Amino acid sequence: MYTLYFAPGTCALASHIALAESGLPYEVRRVKFAENEQRSEAYLKINPKGRVPALVMDKGVLTETVAILAFIAQVAREANLAPLDDPFLFGRMQAFNAYLASTVHVAHAHGRRGTRWADEPSSHADMQRKVPQTMGESFRLIEDELLAGPYVLGDRYSIADPYLFTIATWLEGDKVDIARFPRVQAHFEAMKARPAVQKAFAEEAAA
Amino acid sequence: MYTLYFAPGTCALASHIALAESGLPYEVRRVKFAENEQRSEAYLKINPKGRVPALVMDKGVLTETVAILAFIAQVAREANLAPLDDPFLFGRMQAFNAYLASTVHVAHAHGRRGTRWADEPSSHADMQRKVPQTMGESFRLIEDELLAGPYVLGDRYSIADPYLFTIATWLEGDKVDIARFPRVQAHFEAMKARPAVQKAFAEEAAA
Ligand SMILES: N[C@@H](CCC(=O)N[C@@H](CS)C(=O)NCC(=O)O)C(=O)O
Ligand SMILES: N[C@@H](CCC(=O)N[C@@H](CS)C(=O)NCC(=O)O)C(=O)O
Repeated sequence: MYTLYFAPGTCALASHIALAESGLPYEVRRVKFAENEQRSEAYLKINPKGRVPALVMDKGVLTETVAILAFIAQVAREANLAPLDDPFLFGRMQAFNAYLASTVHVAHAHGRRGTRWADEPSSHADMQRKVPQTMGESFRLIEDELLAGPYVLGDRYSIADPYLFTIATWLEGDKVDIARFPRVQAHFEAMKARPAVQKAFAEEAAA
Repeated sequence: MYTLYFAPGTCALASHIALAESGLPYEVRRVKFAENEQRSEAYLKINPKGRVPALVMDKGVLTETVAILAFIAQVAREANLAPLDDPFLFGRMQAFNAYLASTVHVAHAHGRRGTRWADEPSSHADMQRKVPQTMGESFRLIEDELLAGPYVLGDRYSIADPYLFTIATWLEGDKVDIARFPRVQAHFEAMKARPAVQKAFAEEAAA
């Protein structure tokens, strides 16, 4: 049994969707950000970074979206969620996910979590103003260079798809019109229609 | 033949050391940051993100340190640079590398590349002032929770080690005293003594 610690509206949705696609047995547990539960003593024992997602299993805990997604694909081989026997294609997929984690997610976080990187309110306001630009530029690159279409890797679905979908759910709040990126938008609509995505949203709402 | 595009003093050193450890045939090409060559038309054809590292081979191009390192370990199986047959341990290694890429590298970058996330000089100065704190906190977590020692995964060397070493070379410039972190410091000294690390430094100096 796998237990995923998540909060609604966060990057943990990517791992949640991947679990729903995988066929693995799992449950989800909500970490209450409104109560700052991610920094509680109990949660810091699970993930000392004080973040979601965290995936707990008998062997121990995995953190970091890029690592959790690849792990799910590797243990649920039959679900065919990654090109596990092709190191180059696997590398392209991991490069896409690493770009989301290290650049796109980080660009988004400057709108809400500016206190991570600066102390003055004027700096936080400055960071907030720039988010539509940095998120827009990131999605321009995804649209023009990285998203093969219809899925990230082309015809084959992979764990890069729930991750892209998850970050695309942030565009509206970041004041970036997804309609500027037709391939991303088509991907977004196709993802929303998948049973695993609907299952994940329903489970998040119920948790 | 693999061609690694790098610039001295950057995160590309991690991939360079991994190549030197791997036994794979490779060459390195320097991208001249002083001339802004990373944004030249020619280089943007290799990596449209305008960053290093990029690993070029017959099949195509891989970017992102996390993905390049895993790729090197997967194609150079005999070099034993990753626990390829243990998805959980592989996941722990990837989680470590993803933390370096998405949090520690990003914390460091706020000291030099603040224009990515804000426009006002006062914001950039604010970000710069905070780098010793954020890098110090990141290495506190690495020291206390993540670095099993002597290597990142414990007794077995892996591609997480050149990546940790590479980021640790930035501590001095970020005004963080590595002596505060004895396990990190022992790791740093052990890495410096490795032939692959010395080979990579020599090749960077000659390129
Ligand atoms: N690099 C991590 C980032 C995790 C992360 O930043 N999660 C956010 C939600 S999207 C979080 O838990 N924030 C809580 C906080 O900062 O207090 C990953 O990719 O999983
Ligand atoms: N997420 C990327 C980051 C790559 C990156 O930011 N590289 C820096 C050097 S450490 C760079 O090329 N900077 C050039 C620039 O910003 O113009 C990775 O992990 O490989």
